[in-house]
Amino acid sequence: MSNYAISIKSVEKKGVLEEITEIITAHNINIAYLNLFIERDSKGSINLELEDVDDIDLLIKELNSLESVYSVEIHPSQEDVFGKRVIIYGGGSQVSQVALGAITEADRHNIRGERISIDTLPVVGEESIAEAINALTRIPRVSVLVLAGSLMGGEIIEEIKKVKEVYDLTVFSLNMPGGVTEVSDLVVTDPIQVGVMAVMQAASTAVFDYRKLKKSNRKF
Amino acid sequence: MSNYAISIKSVEKKGVLEEITEIITAHNINIAYLNLFIERDSKGSINLELEDVDDIDLLIKELNSLESVYSVEIHPSQEDVFGKRVIIYGGGSQVSQVALGAITEADRHNIRGERISIDTLPVVGEESIAEAINALTRIPRVSVLVLAGSLMGGEIIEEIKKVKEVYDLTVFSLNMPGGVTEVSDLVVTDPIQVGVMAVMQAASTAVFDYRKLKKSNRKF
Repeated sequence: MSNYAISIKSVEKKGVLEEITEIITAHNINIAYLNLFIERDSKGSINLELEDVDDIDLLIKELNSLESVYSVEIHPSQEDVFGKRVIIYGGGSQVSQVALGAITEADRHNIRGERISIDTLPVVGEESIAEAINALTRIPRVSVLVLAGSLMGGEIIEEIKKVKEVYDLTVFSLNMPGGVTEVSDLVVTDPIQVGVMAVMQAASTAVFDYRKLKKSNRKF
Repeated sequence: MSNYAISIKSVEKKGVLEEITEIITAHNINIAYLNLFIERDSKGSINLELEDVDDIDLLIKELNSLESVYSVEIHPSQEDVFGKRVIIYGGGSQVSQVALGAITEADRHNIRGERISIDTLPVVGEESIAEAINALTRIPRVSVLVLAGSLMGGEIIEEIKKVKEVYDLTVFSLNMPGGVTEVSDLVVTDPIQVGVMAVMQAASTAVFDYRKLKKSNRKF
């Protein structure tokens, strides 16, 4: 029993995914990750990460035998390529400074064999930021969210609370008015520092973990 | 007929996706995007963007009636939240400077209503970069790739050529030795500048398009 990541190129038509999942289910294989989207040339791109695969050659042969499938390839998983994600939301001069710290620190970890990506959405406005926080529950591999702004509160606080009830989401924020610091796991004044610390939190080669700090000592 | 983005929380067990795709296929709905992953609490998270939906209420009712489904919610699409992606690969001092330019420029566009994300993977080594370029064919919404390094060639060149045969991928790169500049669409010496120009290329509110430049004038 092994895990595999495979990529299927297919005709874009209704029902193709059903044909594919039927074969996978018949093989008693678990789908740990699936990403399907329509390419610019209108082909379907279906990327799967499969667990408990008994006979990968037979599976690929059966998938290839579908009329709607052009090709099936084995490839590295998204986790292998892109690794954990540190997500940065915010605007103005601060968002790029937080990213600067995070990217420089991730470079130092990745050169030692880790994989950490820094995904930045420059976004402002209470409603837009709250919506983007909610969207984190629908994307994989999120490790730490950093809020890089000068005023965040209201709906943003409510959304963090809501997400944290269900997900193990770590939130670091800049020190700022608005109340968002009350629901953040770590509050840092310097933007480069908060970026660095977010990557240290995500990294498995680093010893830093905000949970080791006393609750009264989580503001820098 | 309308388009919807929905999110399904389900039991994590074999065959759930098949049950769901069966219902969607029966409704004659097209799946434009699907992302499935296992959450930390072991629930399945299945996020779909659907086209040609006739009766969304009936669809949600039928999905909710599945024993393995906990909840179904309508939410904004990934395109609405995260928008187009400018992807940055490279290492050292340059990767964060390219990101600095790109994030600052994206902030200026997003504040005017666009959505552009800057996704950075600090990565070095011919093989790792080539693999990460290949992985771009398996993720959605990629607009421009920026190569931020001081020496890139060999396999990286071959991978760019291969991807460009099939995908409409735009590649900007720093001016550097190694030959990668030969297969890049635009070559820029200053790292902040190449980040800014990548976002201008991706943006629909900007007038810049490298294709408007003479081929002999695509190096800055």
